[in-house]
Amino acid sequence: MPPAAQPDLPLSPHGEIDSMLSRKFGKEVANYFSGSPLNRVAFLRTDHTFLTQALHHPSTTFILFKDLNPLLKDPATLATVPYSTVKPLVGENPYLTPEAEQIAAYNSSTYIPTLIFLGLDPAPPSPLTYKSHSGAPVFALDVTPRAHLTDASNNLISSLTSQSLSFSTGRHNLTLPPSAAALYASARHLLDWNTRNPFCAQCGSPTLSTNAGWKRTCPPSDTAFQTPRPSCVSRGAISNICFPRTDPTVIMAVISASGDKILLGRQNRWPAHWYSTLAGFLEPAESVEEAVRREVWEESGVRVGRVVVHSTQPWPYPANLMIGAVGQALPDGEAVDLGNDPELEDARWFELAEVREALRVGTSGLGEEAGPGYKEGGLRLPPRTAIAHQLLDAVVNGGFLAGVVKI
Amino acid sequence: MPPAAQPDLPLSPHGEIDSMLSRKFGKEVANYFSGSPLNRVAFLRTDHTFLTQALHHPSTTFILFKDLNPLLKDPATLATVPYSTVKPLVGENPYLTPEAEQIAAYNSSTYIPTLIFLGLDPAPPSPLTYKSHSGAPVFALDVTPRAHLTDASNNLISSLTSQSLSFSTGRHNLTLPPSAAALYASARHLLDWNTRNPFCAQCGSPTLSTNAGWKRTCPPSDTAFQTPRPSCVSRGAISNICFPRTDPTVIMAVISASGDKILLGRQNRWPAHWYSTLAGFLEPAESVEEAVRREVWEESGVRVGRVVVHSTQPWPYPANLMIGAVGQALPDGEAVDLGNDPELEDARWFELAEVREALRVGTSGLGEEAGPGYKEGGLRLPPRTAIAHQLLDAVVNGGFLAGVVKI
Repeated sequence: MPPAAQPDLPLSPHGEIDSMLSRKFGKEVANYFSGSPLNRVAFLRTDHTFLTQALHHPSTTFILFKDLNPLLKDPATLATVPYSTVKPLVGENPYLTPEAEQIAAYNSSTYIPTLIFLGLDPAPPSPLTYKSHSGAPVFALDVTPRAHLTDASNNLISSLTSQSLSFSTGRHNLTLPPSAAALYASARHLLDWNTRNPFCAQCGSPTLSTNAGWKRTCPPSDTAFQTPRPSCVSRGAISNICFPRTDPTVIMAVISASGDKILLGRQNRWPAHWYSTLAGFLEPAESVEEAVRREVWEESGVRVGRVVVHSTQPWPYPANLMIGAVGQALPDGEAVDLGNDPELEDARWFELAEVREALRVGTSGLGEEAGPGYKEGGLRLPPRTAIAHQLLDAVVNGGFLAGVVKI
Repeated sequence: MPPAAQPDLPLSPHGEIDSMLSRKFGKEVANYFSGSPLNRVAFLRTDHTFLTQALHHPSTTFILFKDLNPLLKDPATLATVPYSTVKPLVGENPYLTPEAEQIAAYNSSTYIPTLIFLGLDPAPPSPLTYKSHSGAPVFALDVTPRAHLTDASNNLISSLTSQSLSFSTGRHNLTLPPSAAALYASARHLLDWNTRNPFCAQCGSPTLSTNAGWKRTCPPSDTAFQTPRPSCVSRGAISNICFPRTDPTVIMAVISASGDKILLGRQNRWPAHWYSTLAGFLEPAESVEEAVRREVWEESGVRVGRVVVHSTQPWPYPANLMIGAVGQALPDGEAVDLGNDPELEDARWFELAEVREALRVGTSGLGEEAGPGYKEGGLRLPPRTAIAHQLLDAVVNGGFLAGVVKI
């Protein structure tokens, strides 16, 4: 089995050989939304014999989504249901035939709800064992009422909500612990990607969810139509458009050349006094360091020299890999100029002490009140679950640059 | 202007404040395909007044592609041409009207060759100046013969090839110096993305290249058809499917727990004795460290503990961001097992001395002969332009872990 999953401590390091590398590189930061407890057994996603057993095993659970919002017991707990509950939507066995046969029999007029095999949970007793792998299978299912399954979905939803379960009404209401957040993040990312890509970007034809939800295939024929489908190069070769998209994004705590200030910015839709680290999408043919320098210059006019990667965070809104870095301004590049890209309302340098105090009393989600110690007019910052927070904490409290610059 | 571009030294660090951070974190490695000399001025991609001036300025150059292969003077030099050469394909001014008007007037039956504004080159004399920015504009143009421009493209190609210019016949023939390689990488990545995404993945309708080649928009109407287009959520909100895709990929030199061996693998289609570091796509809801641990376990059975990011490399075949890391096996996790994912033909541990010798005499591109000092049967490794090579070099020669583990 693969390396042990994270315990439910989003900021704890991976354990066993810490002492060897952490002295040189610092401890690993496992950000919120990472740390899934599941073994993905990615190579079994095309094995219909395995998937059939996984679907029907007594240890199997399903997490449900409606319009990308998860079913909850309460804001801190994902609800799980057994196969019998979802059978009216899923059917007896969508994995009955090998994938190649499903592709050959494709009919675009038949709605199939998106079902994703997320992996095997090693923890529960009496798990499924398949070849050398064992664990309790976990699936995610889209139960949004659609097409011929509208009534079945509505019935399922009514039955669930009568049991005091409810679908989240937005991401800011969720307070999932880290391992549940990681499960949710993988499911939401994949459901969103399937929902956003029902057509082939190469030829414009409708596509079929395959590989247990991890691929979309452009079938060569469609029994719903007499006319042949256009030819498509995505069928003859591996094409990235068939696989889930993840957008690399850089986010950076920029310190001044002498290390005594931090650059933060704000958008005009944010609450008053709320700032964060700068961020933006990495572009084609850029290294992470180049993307950091370009984004900081575009948004603030500040020119960055050295860049060091701190940690990464999967961010499922909808599909980002946040690559967190610490950058340092060039001595003659600290002047703020908002005249390039009008994305930010403000960007300016803050004293380390002000950032340290804001991390102590002024952090919250964007829609929430600041904490009890916050004084009106003080700097406000993102919560602990955001990598922006971790980057700032690493600089002002964690000694990320200790011994190198005077912070 | 933004931070100075890299000089033509793919492995040199960015300069000015090296002394402060490199003592702690090591020098920055700028891998091949990064280090573009251009200022992208991304925020001007929607400014049709700027684009009009950029298209027609005397300092402007175009690099040309046919079937994604660049026009070359020789294998080490990209050919550039002026506006007058490409005018038969580009027309008088494709940026004449604001983008909103072009979208409103969309006609899917009119073929428009993909034209990409890559950025401003700060080096040449007599550059274009626009607001506070100046440089010589650089564009990339797809001249592959198509639709009503087939004859014009063929004429252009004939004229160019009669001047001893030729299109590359494949990536392994290219020996571009780093700054030209970075230009090529950005152009190839964007041209490939435009070519691979002529239809909207959300609604299946044809799309229009916008933002000077950096976006594809799903127009609300199409004058080529009487029937209305389907509604599409990509029109009402920002959707990532409209923007270039870059796939984060992890690639890792894995050292043994005691630091005296390195794990390498090979695919069966590679030349005999040729090995490389393991690699694979990062999946949704994974941190870089998690992706490294999963991929290494899937492909080799080895279980990795600590993971440290080393450097990143844009890789334009077609659209990867290679995230290079050094990982360390857990003391009880070093057994090789190829039984999970059948992707590799072999994976095994190599002594550091063998890897060091192979870096000295056994490196080459996949299609090339090994160097003169290579003895048949010895280990072969990727060339200096590959991040795999840089990772191995960092471990066995660069002292990446010096003082921490005994290498």
